[in-house]
Amino acid sequence: MFAKYLENVRGTTPLVHCLTNYVTVNDCANALLACGASPIMADDLSEVAEITTLCNATVVNIGTLNERTIKSMLVAAQTANKIKHALVLDPVGAGASDLRTHTAHTLLDQADFTVIRGNISEIKALALKSNTTKGVDANLADQINDGNLQESLQFIRSLSIDTNSIIAVSGALDVISDSHESYIIKNGHPAMSKITGSGCMLTCLIAAYIAANPENVLQATAAAVALMGIAGEMAAKINTGTGSMRSNILDALSSIDGKILEENIKIEKF
Amino acid sequence: MFAKYLENVRGTTPLVHCLTNYVTVNDCANALLACGASPIMADDLSEVAEITTLCNATVVNIGTLNERTIKSMLVAAQTANKIKHALVLDPVGAGASDLRTHTAHTLLDQADFTVIRGNISEIKALALKSNTTKGVDANLADQINDGNLQESLQFIRSLSIDTNSIIAVSGALDVISDSHESYIIKNGHPAMSKITGSGCMLTCLIAAYIAANPENVLQATAAAVALMGIAGEMAAKINTGTGSMRSNILDALSSIDGKILEENIKIEKF
Amino acid sequence: MFAKYLENVRGTTPLVHCLTNYVTVNDCANALLACGASPIMADDLSEVAEITTLCNATVVNIGTLNERTIKSMLVAAQTANKIKHALVLDPVGAGASDLRTHTAHTLLDQADFTVIRGNISEIKALALKSNTTKGVDANLADQINDGNLQESLQFIRSLSIDTNSIIAVSGALDVISDSHESYIIKNGHPAMSKITGSGCMLTCLIAAYIAANPENVLQATAAAVALMGIAGEMAAKINTGTGSMRSNILDALSSIDGKILEENIKIEKF
Repeated sequence: MFAKYLENVRGTTPLVHCLTNYVTVNDCANALLACGASPIMADDLSEVAEITTLCNATVVNIGTLNERTIKSMLVAAQTANKIKHALVLDPVGAGASDLRTHTAHTLLDQADFTVIRGNISEIKALALKSNTTKGVDANLADQINDGNLQESLQFIRSLSIDTNSIIAVSGALDVISDSHESYIIKNGHPAMSKITGSGCMLTCLIAAYIAANPENVLQATAAAVALMGIAGEMAAKINTGTGSMRSNILDALSSIDGKILEENIKIEKF
Repeated sequence: MFAKYLENVRGTTPLVHCLTNYVTVNDCANALLACGASPIMADDLSEVAEITTLCNATVVNIGTLNERTIKSMLVAAQTANKIKHALVLDPVGAGASDLRTHTAHTLLDQADFTVIRGNISEIKALALKSNTTKGVDANLADQINDGNLQESLQFIRSLSIDTNSIIAVSGALDVISDSHESYIIKNGHPAMSKITGSGCMLTCLIAAYIAANPENVLQATAAAVALMGIAGEMAAKINTGTGSMRSNILDALSSIDGKILEENIKIEKF
Repeated sequence: MFAKYLENVRGTTPLVHCLTNYVTVNDCANALLACGASPIMADDLSEVAEITTLCNATVVNIGTLNERTIKSMLVAAQTANKIKHALVLDPVGAGASDLRTHTAHTLLDQADFTVIRGNISEIKALALKSNTTKGVDANLADQINDGNLQESLQFIRSLSIDTNSIIAVSGALDVISDSHESYIIKNGHPAMSKITGSGCMLTCLIAAYIAANPENVLQATAAAVALMGIAGEMAAKINTGTGSMRSNILDALSSIDGKILEENIKIEKF
């Protein structure tokens, strides 16, 4: 059932406009190419609307944001809304500084995001205005586990209602949810947190998947999350350290087909 | 015959100033080091002229351009002209936005570029003011093949006359041409288009090759194009996906010597 | 004796704020993760002080500096001083342009850096106001060797007195020195100079090591230098070119434990 979402990406090569940080931007471009999509990065105010219009989806990732690029992010997001294209927010470091928390809220106020993907601390910073983020990584105390799952789902669904977005929370256990339907994914590997960019790459994959699968954006988001998790598992099996882990994840992303996705996805519906 | 161009790069370590995009900048620096050159990246208006003067060649790549860096690109290009250094333009995404197309034209109006390298859609955007670019990748309908080769050569030579630049068009079939002499190179591998940066890296290699070989910039450009193609072929033979492809291309670039270049180059003169 | 410095990093996961260039920023983030630390990159003036305060150490690397980021670097450096956190300067390209030399001097005037790490040409540009830097690489004529070691130590100690910083000079032979105590490290491999970023990565490792080892910052700096050198040696043993060298260095950084460090460190005290 989830194979078709992957195949639709490979079959349609969605073009994804990424306004993203300069730390992991190369990984984002390569992850998009690996999954069968095509990236374009443009952040100057005088071209963002035009580039957004050319594309099938837009990613706004607020890592290494600055005064200049924040303006471009707002215009790109509003343009994506105007032309009814898929729009994904990655609130990197929300909760770590007022600028990031405030920018994330401004983006959510001024545009409708199809999906918001972050770690649990970033998602909490958006929902509860708490500041528990430890830099750009999640605070351990915030992690979702089997013990606090029901409580977590309730809070995630309530953020989904507030924002009218699908919420994708990354962690040992991934949660993808709209206001009433949720998927839990247990793919992935701890080694993924030892390289930079696994979250940013996933956000880009989600954009490609929802652009290619407008008929079911919730399941398409879940498929992208599972793809990244399975790629991490495959990479971890053969990695010899964090340098090869990074390269192996891209290898896996480019190799996984619909059959591998179906056979390895560990998903539950709630 | 082409081996000497490679050996001259390794023998002289040309220093190449790159004003380039933040997506593939790391690959550009590593590609220059791999081929025996040395990179420096500087884009602040108050240092670009000084850095250009220190170097043997300058690359202007308009991917992720912005208002600030466009000013620096113009000054760097004009400085390179003033000191008669090699100057290469990579019009990334020309045709995809007015800003990119306009900036490419402004650069060509205000400076003389030794070489312009792009995919066929970007080159067409410069020559015909057409906008057929699909993001930063070439539009398939634009591709040069054996069937439209003569027509393509005519159009490329005419752009060479207009700009007084050598034109290097990348694709399944690469064309390197000045106003009356053209080379066709059939090296390369489709897997190269599945990673970001193969075009940007090639542009940097060309800058190093023409800086080290001022006595024949047309053939030196062809040698750089062949080098990149052969590196792609060698990488594709052992890659296990797109992550390793990227790493393998750099491995190959650092390993190819004059003999390997001579033995593997697939070149025809027209 | 040096193992504990490594173990303290892995045991405390210091969070390192990096204001650094966009060429090697991804390598910096991955190197910090590989050694057991955690990176955050933020360069907008309106968030740098807050992010610095959140962190355990701050790196200021002036590669690809610009007018906007220079202001942020100054604020981050002064904030790190105010909260008495570790602060490391990497004067990339000092001596290559007035902007870089001047910015490095301004930073040293307006903030106290715990450690300054550069190649010998950059360090000379700071100390002697000489301009012998060849781009971002050291001028061969400047290299420290057994013949000029005593003279070099004298000059490095005198810079340490002037700046009240530990000075770490990278080269075939590494020198780490304060005003009266010096360590020479002979780890490392020539292949490290064939990839971009080995210097930038080391600067970040130093920040993590001194943050986790405030009781002996001189030896902690030496431990970080040795770690990078040993990682280079291990990577060079199995590399198949410069692409795999880069990946192998990160693999080694993530694999080296206290025992491997102790067994492989080649250090002398002067």
